[in-house]
Amino acid sequence: MAAIAQGQPAKNRAVFQVSDADPQKWNLTLNNAKNVQDDLGSESVDLEIVVYGPAIGMLKGDSPVAKRIADALKSGVKVVACENTMKAQKLVHADMLPGIGYVPAGVVELMKKQHEGYAYIRP
Amino acid sequence: MAAIAQGQPAKNRAVFQVSDADPQKWNLTLNNAKNVQDDLGSESVDLEIVVYGPAIGMLKGDSPVAKRIADALKSGVKVVACENTMKAQKLVHADMLPGIGYVPAGVVELMKKQHEGYAYIRP
Amino acid sequence: MAAIAQGQPAKNRAVFQVSDADPQKWNLTLNNAKNVQDDLGSESVDLEIVVYGPAIGMLKGDSPVAKRIADALKSGVKVVACENTMKAQKLVHADMLPGIGYVPAGVVELMKKQHEGYAYIRP
Repeated sequence: MAAIAQGQPAKNRAVFQVSDADPQKWNLTLNNAKNVQDDLGSESVDLEIVVYGPAIGMLKGDSPVAKRIADALKSGVKVVACENTMKAQKLVHADMLPGIGYVPAGVVELMKKQHEGYAYIRP
Repeated sequence: MAAIAQGQPAKNRAVFQVSDADPQKWNLTLNNAKNVQDDLGSESVDLEIVVYGPAIGMLKGDSPVAKRIADALKSGVKVVACENTMKAQKLVHADMLPGIGYVPAGVVELMKKQHEGYAYIRP
Repeated sequence: MAAIAQGQPAKNRAVFQVSDADPQKWNLTLNNAKNVQDDLGSESVDLEIVVYGPAIGMLKGDSPVAKRIADALKSGVKVVACENTMKAQKLVHADMLPGIGYVPAGVVELMKKQHEGYAYIRP
C-alpha cells in the first residue's frame, strides 16, 4: 500500500540532484527550477535540490553561484547539503551559504523524496 | 490516490532525458531506446526522449545525429524539444528536425511523465 | 492498480546507474551505496548497481576499481552488467569480475526496478 500511503499527487514535486563540480550544471539546475515555477506557479510546486559529492563546494560561502542560490531560496526552492560529504571535506555549517538546509546523507534524501512521490531530475 | 489515478503499469514506459551537448550521449540514448524496443517489442513500449538545455542543438536541422533521430522517430520513439530552451537560443520550429514534438518546458514534461508512471532514464 | 501491485514500500531500495567510463563516478557510486548502508542499515536495504555503455570496462577483470567492487559485493550490493553492451564490445562472462550478475539489457533492468518501486539514482 506504499503508493496510497504517499498521500498526494506527485505532479508538482521534484527533487534535483547536483553532484558534479560544474558551474554549468548548477546554472542548468537553477534554470530548470525557475522554469518549473514559471510554468506551474511557484506557490503550487515543491522543489528541492540535493547537493552532494564533488558539487558540495558550490554551497560554500565563496560559491561562484551564491547569488543565484540566494534567489532560488527566496523563491521557495529548498537547497540541502549532504553532511556525509561535508564531513569528508572537513566542512562545517559555518563554512556554508546562509539559508540552506542539511541532510545526513544526500543519496538517502533522494531515495526518501522519490518514495514520497517526488519526480527525480538529474540535470 | 495519485498512484491509482495513474491507471496502468509502468513496466514498458520510459522517459529519457538528454540535456548534454555530447553526441556520445545521444548515441547512447538512441542505443538504449533500440535495446528496449528489441527486448520488449517495439509495439508494446512507450518511449519518449526529452531534450533541453545544452542538448537542444542536436535537434537542429543540421544535427550530426539527424539520421539516427529520424530512424528512432520511424520506430515509434517520441522526441520532444523544450520550447523554453529554444526561446533562450532564439530557435523556432522551422530551425528544427522534422517529425519531432514540442513541450513548453522539458523539465515539467519529465515530471509529468514520471507522475504518469514512466521510468526515468538519464543516459 | 500498478502501484498497489508493486507491493511494498520503496523506502530502502535503490537502483544506481553507472554508464560513464569515469573512475570518479564509480567511486562516487560506491561511496553512495556505502552511505545508504551505514545510514539505513545494510540488512534492511536493497541496492543494485546497473552497469552499461561506456562504463562496462570497469567490470572487466583488470578493473582499476576491482577491490572496491569486491567490497561492495561482500556488503550485499548487487552489481549487474548489461549483456547488450558486452556483446557490442565482444566481452564474455570470463572476461568479467567474479561475483557480478548479468542482465540482457541494462536499461530494461532500470525500468523494471523503478516499476518495482526502487528509487533511481544516477551518480
